[in-house]
Amino acid sequence: MNILDIIQKKQKKQELTKEEIEYFITGYTNGNIADYQASALLMAIFLNGMSDREITDLTLAMAYSGEVIDLSSLGTVVDKHSTGGVGDKVTLILMPIVAMLGIPVAKMSGRGLGFTGGTVDKLESIPGYKTQISVEEFISNVKKIGISLIGQSLNLAPADKKIYALRDATSCVQSIPLIASSIMSKKIASGANKIVLDVTCGDGAFMKTRQEAEELSDKMIQIGKLANKETVCVITDMNEPLGYSVGNNLEVIEAIEALKGNIREDVKKVVLALGAEMLRLAGKGENIQKNKELIEQTIQSGMALEKFKQLVQNQGGDISYIENTSKFEKSEYIVPIVLPEMQKQENARKVISLSAEAIGKASCSAGAGRQKKEDSIDMTAGIVLNKKVGDYVKSGDILAYLHTNKKEKIDEIQQQILKAYELG
Amino acid sequence: MNILDIIQKKQKKQELTKEEIEYFITGYTNGNIADYQASALLMAIFLNGMSDREITDLTLAMAYSGEVIDLSSLGTVVDKHSTGGVGDKVTLILMPIVAMLGIPVAKMSGRGLGFTGGTVDKLESIPGYKTQISVEEFISNVKKIGISLIGQSLNLAPADKKIYALRDATSCVQSIPLIASSIMSKKIASGANKIVLDVTCGDGAFMKTRQEAEELSDKMIQIGKLANKETVCVITDMNEPLGYSVGNNLEVIEAIEALKGNIREDVKKVVLALGAEMLRLAGKGENIQKNKELIEQTIQSGMALEKFKQLVQNQGGDISYIENTSKFEKSEYIVPIVLPEMQKQENARKVISLSAEAIGKASCSAGAGRQKKEDSIDMTAGIVLNKKVGDYVKSGDILAYLHTNKKEKIDEIQQQILKAYELG
Repeated sequence: MNILDIIQKKQKKQELTKEEIEYFITGYTNGNIADYQASALLMAIFLNGMSDREITDLTLAMAYSGEVIDLSSLGTVVDKHSTGGVGDKVTLILMPIVAMLGIPVAKMSGRGLGFTGGTVDKLESIPGYKTQISVEEFISNVKKIGISLIGQSLNLAPADKKIYALRDATSCVQSIPLIASSIMSKKIASGANKIVLDVTCGDGAFMKTRQEAEELSDKMIQIGKLANKETVCVITDMNEPLGYSVGNNLEVIEAIEALKGNIREDVKKVVLALGAEMLRLAGKGENIQKNKELIEQTIQSGMALEKFKQLVQNQGGDISYIENTSKFEKSEYIVPIVLPEMQKQENARKVISLSAEAIGKASCSAGAGRQKKEDSIDMTAGIVLNKKVGDYVKSGDILAYLHTNKKEKIDEIQQQILKAYELG
Repeated sequence: MNILDIIQKKQKKQELTKEEIEYFITGYTNGNIADYQASALLMAIFLNGMSDREITDLTLAMAYSGEVIDLSSLGTVVDKHSTGGVGDKVTLILMPIVAMLGIPVAKMSGRGLGFTGGTVDKLESIPGYKTQISVEEFISNVKKIGISLIGQSLNLAPADKKIYALRDATSCVQSIPLIASSIMSKKIASGANKIVLDVTCGDGAFMKTRQEAEELSDKMIQIGKLANKETVCVITDMNEPLGYSVGNNLEVIEAIEALKGNIREDVKKVVLALGAEMLRLAGKGENIQKNKELIEQTIQSGMALEKFKQLVQNQGGDISYIENTSKFEKSEYIVPIVLPEMQKQENARKVISLSAEAIGKASCSAGAGRQKKEDSIDMTAGIVLNKKVGDYVKSGDILAYLHTNKKEKIDEIQQQILKAYELG
């Protein structure tokens, strides 16, 4: 077997065997196959596609290219993953709920990159919360209180990391087979038996159209079937940011408020949809409507908030911040973004769209995000949205609040935020 | 402008602009664009193709990526190039002929790689012949005696060299736009005004079918038109080796014999076809048939041989080898390859095919070729064919003679040669 023949097969749109895919992944991970050979093969895959069987073999080869966490001692673990969005604090709200309902939650999350945030950064905005702990401690935490949320310290799916970086440097990110296998390989390496995927769709997501989101969902469901990891996809809207806050401290505060019962409709919808599927996969109830009601009750009763406090305390975090969110550090500048005077039109106008990508980028400029992996982030920075799609606004109204420590950037970001709003 | 956008355009099958192609070639040549980015783009070109305009811009960008020889002081220089074959000694025979007929011959040739030979290696088998001389000496030689054949010492089309090596390592050699631009860029950098191309076709050539050879020819003629370098392609057969000898000394001996009038029919056909086009391009006569007759006369009169002697002498070679070819060193082992006894059939059988590739590889094994650029070669090694396609053979007949210094390989090569013959 050699890489030249494998590249040639894919050039000719032929199906690669399991052995050929494993040969490529092993060789590329250990450095025997060069970057330029891998990028040639990835481009051929990008242009000529892969069958479901090939995508599954690719997923499994990447999943097993490094360590694979064994969560079998925890029973049926249902993992949850989102393909990324702006203002997405669903994990923080949903995981304590399902843990409260008896599903073991052992979840490793990533950091934010570009304009999409990461759960680990958000967790670290709670003083004392330890996201870097050993796998043994992680599993023992789940056994003790039913939940642990941490970062990825292990060498999980290194082939995926290497391939993702290469795709990024060769315009090969936007490929459904490659996105599907990348996501699923990480989930499988993380030890989940069953997987609920939040496939975001719209301006602020990787998948821009409903059709793309459906295609990606189909592929991941097929991989789950063939790899024996039952998978459900829920397609959710990511045209405007989710909820009212974007930025680390700000999103944690919104999540805590949500667990206290003050949950925005758009956030609740996603929490209920994903949670109901998780309960079903875990064998806790087949009726999606009833599952949703159960989740609502868990929030209203305050039990989900209790579980969240327990989680924070168990990971070393300071729970006084949960009890009193005004303790979270604030940015030096909190700037109301006001709709300027119009010349003619003085009637109220409707917000017909609010670009998630633009708000994500504005929040990034304010200090909340990273451009490169090594960048540090400002936990206090971000944006609180006062008006969202469907709201009526008139001149002088406050559309949003910008939180930042970068005084010199305020004017520029103000313009970015104003441009994100489209009025009807 | 950036390489990611350029890759993305070609992914989407869009046409690249001249500026984008130049950006790629310049960036890749100077190292600003990484190998893995270039290989991704080359794969996208391989799969999505290029328009004639794009191929021409690519050719010119590669041609001007390094030094370009200025032959304008020599008048109209008609270059000749073959896409490669086994036993191809046409340059050695043809160039003295056209020089004799008044076309300035200033030709740089390459070395052999794999199972196809190179003119420079063949020239160096004449003791004393200098293939590495300065461009000034090269041009002054042409001015003095009308001909100089040398090796490539300059940094001609470095982008093409880098890209060719990358294509070789990523299964992207077999692409008509990339082959066409590679050949034409080298010809343009070598300073030719007009170009006659011998597009070999068959088992021993890059182009396996007539259709591929025609496609490649069309592309190169188009490039020539757009780049203002008039180009003619002659498609020639490369299913069986050309002539009767394969290997460096052996082919030089055959070429000298041909110039003495003992020229094999298949070799003569190619020499006449290419030469007649060269004369036409140089403005020496429009009538192809008459041009061919002129060439035959130049051989028969001994004038072409005289010009060859003059060339060899002028380059420092020992012309006593031309006068007496038995002076060429011989291999230690000259082994007749005999058709073995058949059990039933004792009638004469016809040779219905003789694989050029198999004979080329056998000659390589005998020591005549290189596997890698750095390998040294045995000038004496090779194969002399006693029977070719159309000949009748019976058991006990000698099919060929193997010339080698590798005693231990004789049995293996013998089998390779026998397998190359297909009997009807």
